[in-house]
Amino acid sequence: MTSQDAHTRATTPDRGTTGWHKDHLTGSRPDLRVPVRRVHLTNGQDVTLYDTSGPYTDPSVTTDVRRGLPPLRAPWIAERGDTEEYPGRPVRPEDDGPRHTVPRAGSPGGPDQDTAFPGPPRRPRRGRDGAVSQLAYARRGLITAEMEFAALREGVAPQVVREEIAAGRAVLPANVNHPEIEPMVIGKRFLVKVNANIGNSAVTSSVEEEVEKLTWATRWGADTVMDLSTGRDIHTTREWVLRNSPVPIGTVPLYQALEKVGGRAEELTWDVYRDTVIEQCEQGVDYMTVHAGVLLRYVPLTARRKTGIVSRGGSIMAAWCLAHHQENFLYSNFAELCEILRVYDVTFSLGDGLRPGSVADANDEAQFAELRTLGELNRVARAHDVQTMIEGPGHVPMHKIKENVELQQEICDEAPFYTLGPLTTDIAPAYDHITSGIGAAMIAWWGTAMLCYVTPKEHLGLPDRDDVKTGVITYKIAAHAADLAKGHPTAQQWDDALSDARFEFRWEDQFNLALDPDTARAFHDETLPAEAAKTAHFCSMCGPKFCSMKISKSINERFGDGPSASDQEIAAGMLAKSREFAEAGNRVYLPVAD
Amino acid sequence: MTSQDAHTRATTPDRGTTGWHKDHLTGSRPDLRVPVRRVHLTNGQDVTLYDTSGPYTDPSVTTDVRRGLPPLRAPWIAERGDTEEYPGRPVRPEDDGPRHTVPRAGSPGGPDQDTAFPGPPRRPRRGRDGAVSQLAYARRGLITAEMEFAALREGVAPQVVREEIAAGRAVLPANVNHPEIEPMVIGKRFLVKVNANIGNSAVTSSVEEEVEKLTWATRWGADTVMDLSTGRDIHTTREWVLRNSPVPIGTVPLYQALEKVGGRAEELTWDVYRDTVIEQCEQGVDYMTVHAGVLLRYVPLTARRKTGIVSRGGSIMAAWCLAHHQENFLYSNFAELCEILRVYDVTFSLGDGLRPGSVADANDEAQFAELRTLGELNRVARAHDVQTMIEGPGHVPMHKIKENVELQQEICDEAPFYTLGPLTTDIAPAYDHITSGIGAAMIAWWGTAMLCYVTPKEHLGLPDRDDVKTGVITYKIAAHAADLAKGHPTAQQWDDALSDARFEFRWEDQFNLALDPDTARAFHDETLPAEAAKTAHFCSMCGPKFCSMKISKSINERFGDGPSASDQEIAAGMLAKSREFAEAGNRVYLPVAD
Repeated sequence: MTSQDAHTRATTPDRGTTGWHKDHLTGSRPDLRVPVRRVHLTNGQDVTLYDTSGPYTDPSVTTDVRRGLPPLRAPWIAERGDTEEYPGRPVRPEDDGPRHTVPRAGSPGGPDQDTAFPGPPRRPRRGRDGAVSQLAYARRGLITAEMEFAALREGVAPQVVREEIAAGRAVLPANVNHPEIEPMVIGKRFLVKVNANIGNSAVTSSVEEEVEKLTWATRWGADTVMDLSTGRDIHTTREWVLRNSPVPIGTVPLYQALEKVGGRAEELTWDVYRDTVIEQCEQGVDYMTVHAGVLLRYVPLTARRKTGIVSRGGSIMAAWCLAHHQENFLYSNFAELCEILRVYDVTFSLGDGLRPGSVADANDEAQFAELRTLGELNRVARAHDVQTMIEGPGHVPMHKIKENVELQQEICDEAPFYTLGPLTTDIAPAYDHITSGIGAAMIAWWGTAMLCYVTPKEHLGLPDRDDVKTGVITYKIAAHAADLAKGHPTAQQWDDALSDARFEFRWEDQFNLALDPDTARAFHDETLPAEAAKTAHFCSMCGPKFCSMKISKSINERFGDGPSASDQEIAAGMLAKSREFAEAGNRVYLPVAD
Repeated sequence: MTSQDAHTRATTPDRGTTGWHKDHLTGSRPDLRVPVRRVHLTNGQDVTLYDTSGPYTDPSVTTDVRRGLPPLRAPWIAERGDTEEYPGRPVRPEDDGPRHTVPRAGSPGGPDQDTAFPGPPRRPRRGRDGAVSQLAYARRGLITAEMEFAALREGVAPQVVREEIAAGRAVLPANVNHPEIEPMVIGKRFLVKVNANIGNSAVTSSVEEEVEKLTWATRWGADTVMDLSTGRDIHTTREWVLRNSPVPIGTVPLYQALEKVGGRAEELTWDVYRDTVIEQCEQGVDYMTVHAGVLLRYVPLTARRKTGIVSRGGSIMAAWCLAHHQENFLYSNFAELCEILRVYDVTFSLGDGLRPGSVADANDEAQFAELRTLGELNRVARAHDVQTMIEGPGHVPMHKIKENVELQQEICDEAPFYTLGPLTTDIAPAYDHITSGIGAAMIAWWGTAMLCYVTPKEHLGLPDRDDVKTGVITYKIAAHAADLAKGHPTAQQWDDALSDARFEFRWEDQFNLALDPDTARAFHDETLPAEAAKTAHFCSMCGPKFCSMKISKSINERFGDGPSASDQEIAAGMLAKSREFAEAGNRVYLPVAD
């Protein structure tokens, strides 16, 4: 790849930035091509970054949201020869939620032809003789193509990925019915991951918007996406999202099941829920949040809380328990649920339905009682070869964050922790991406494997395109800060490349290496719009004449003989060099333009 | 104060929000009136919050930026009878920086009549017989009006403020020539404070803009403001800022001194610097950043750094040391500097000129060598009764943050730590308010007394009005999160009040209690614009029919007998109540408006 070539590609309009291009690392087989982002620096060097944006940023691939993405994993799944296609469950009108009871203009009710996914017909696939999970393979010592793919992305040996999955310390969410994904691994030994939530609701949003939010979120770095739709067209929206998603998709099946019973929690049944789970397994959902830890006896523990139960799934199950005065049907049928998920390789995300919704409720009896039950369920899931993550809070003041990770790791046998924030204070609605970004960075440093983003609209409304970007960027910062603090081998290289560019006044390189090149460039141009300013050896903080970086650079040139220089050499060189400095007329400035 | 009265005041246009009003707590004397913000909740309760906005938000006070604020402290200073007025140093053309060499359109050069502060003439004041610092008074066991004022704001006993100042663990920046300020205290035993930087530069900005930025920053919660002007009209800009500032003002005298010698660092002299310090002491600057710890022998330690010296003051002194091959003149004349500051009660902010400018350089030899020198200078300053803070980094990855506070507290005898961020990663220019907000919250939790904000424009340009607000709000979040983690007695009350409002669907109360009511209200209205929505018992995330908060509230009503209810009572009540729940038709929803 020549830099000219790169430059040409860099001008592709949908790139949003210049100076980098999409590239691939090839594994042990030609169809194992791992996407990377190569940033081309003006000093001739390249920096290689992890890339989640999928084929959408690859100019050699023509994508069409009406056809969906190519089934990258199809040959790998087929070659394993342990799955079979079958007719599958027929799609029913109620699968799309209340739409059929609330017809839209021009909609006759029933499947909505103008919104149905128009891609090629497909039959669902499932394991022929039981578990086809990455966990089952890892335990048998098999390194799958998915594991090698994820290992190449992380820059670690495939064996490490297999071992972490086998031990239950990592998951690789990859439903056999979602062959479009680029495999990735979630675990504390790997790069901290970020999940972005999308989904329509009864109040607002449309199918098109959700697909757009998906590609927008992954472009900025979302590693997984959860479709939390609760309104109309639930099944149809999910189909569009799955067929166009290069990242694993998560859902909360309870939301759709509730719509199927008209929103009446007490009318929920195991059969309706079970049918919904199978529907989603066949579509290709990669991981599912299941609120099986909200036990009947835990509900009263929330009675004297400041903010009760704030998890929607948690409150639905609490209402069901109250209505029937019976044990949570997700708990009592958990083993059967495992039997279903294992034949599709759907990963559990055991939901924390009793997570605190205010700092006052953090780390209380209700929260930790549920966590202990999640630990028990985690062992059941693993006995069935079902990959499992554990969800975590919520709202937690800084001094109570570490206890959350330590307890979860102990109680859940080091299963990957997947937390929402946590928010470190309740007083800043409209800035909860920041109140939670603080907690997210800390909890990730201490061992959380994936962070669920929070947008500026948290508590206030549904995130729009800008909120999704702000949420993802904020959480990429938290995740990367944690990777640095954990000493991840590749993390520091990115910071160093950007700091070198900053010290050497390579403004374009700073922009291209930034998490958000567009905004960095725009902010810089507000003060110094001229193209020349981007190569000028000064920045707007000090003005054109004096620049601390420049002086510092002159010091560096005088004494910086590189790591090889001993302190003695440096000390010796100092006197001579500082005389030179004076003799040279004390040129500590930059040439002034005019 | 009746709520009607409050409501009337709340409608004052420049308030920016409704539902709260300015009030005062009166101390031991009638002229000791401490401002507070009283938020009026729709449930009839009031919440009292710390207020930094000054007389500008007090409808009973008419402010005029051309006259300046009333000299609140004048009688207290006069009553102590230990200061005297004197003619003072005449203002010279060069005090306004290069303007006289770079005349603006319509400017004849020399003092610029159209920008000169038009307020009443004033003569400077200084101690008649030595130190008039709050430290000197505190050591003598005296509780000044300033100490009582700050104690009332913090909700602690005045004796605590005196003890912390006497021990050097806290400072109360209050130049006798800045009687306009509302006294505040900076120390780890008190609420974490936030500083906002303003200041013009050779590239951009004007006098009017700086005064506007000052009042804007304090309105959102800035506890102190630093005027870092480096361009033209430096003296004049500072005069406008001081006379209109209700908060302590800090500066870096070195910046102005450099302008006086045409920007040529090697031409700086102790005399020019000393004259500039006296000029600023007479004007009323409350605290000054002094880079006296950048010693000649430390300069080579930065040679092999990733980003060298990034502190502007640090690089100016490094250049001077190189040019003359002599010891830093701020270090060699430090005792004389103490003699000057003590008679005006100007507080030292010992600058960290060698702070790391990238995570790669964090906690290195250069940084900690300077810190040890700052510890030595801190003891000299205290021997002269000069109040002292110590400045800290910078760019520091999370796992290296704690060491910074612990070393500083040990080496500097627990003097207040005042840090810039730290930024926890270098990869997100345009989001450095967030990369640094993470580090700021952590370092404040561990003992930092004041945080210097970072705006989204850091590394890229000069902050505008929106950037100043974003920077202040982000840092108020970090400071409050730290107050919560430190268990500050009043911190949790704010979160609890907002969470109660959230749980009880009191939307207007949530907005009025928010750090930024305007944005919270605007975000909510984007999704649910109707006025009715603000009292509706649902939010846009779940839609009008189902709301987890509402279900949770019904659980709370069933079992929540308040803290007095025992677990037995709750368990007993549960069965009966859940039957009621069923008999009542399982009403777990809200009446649907349709």
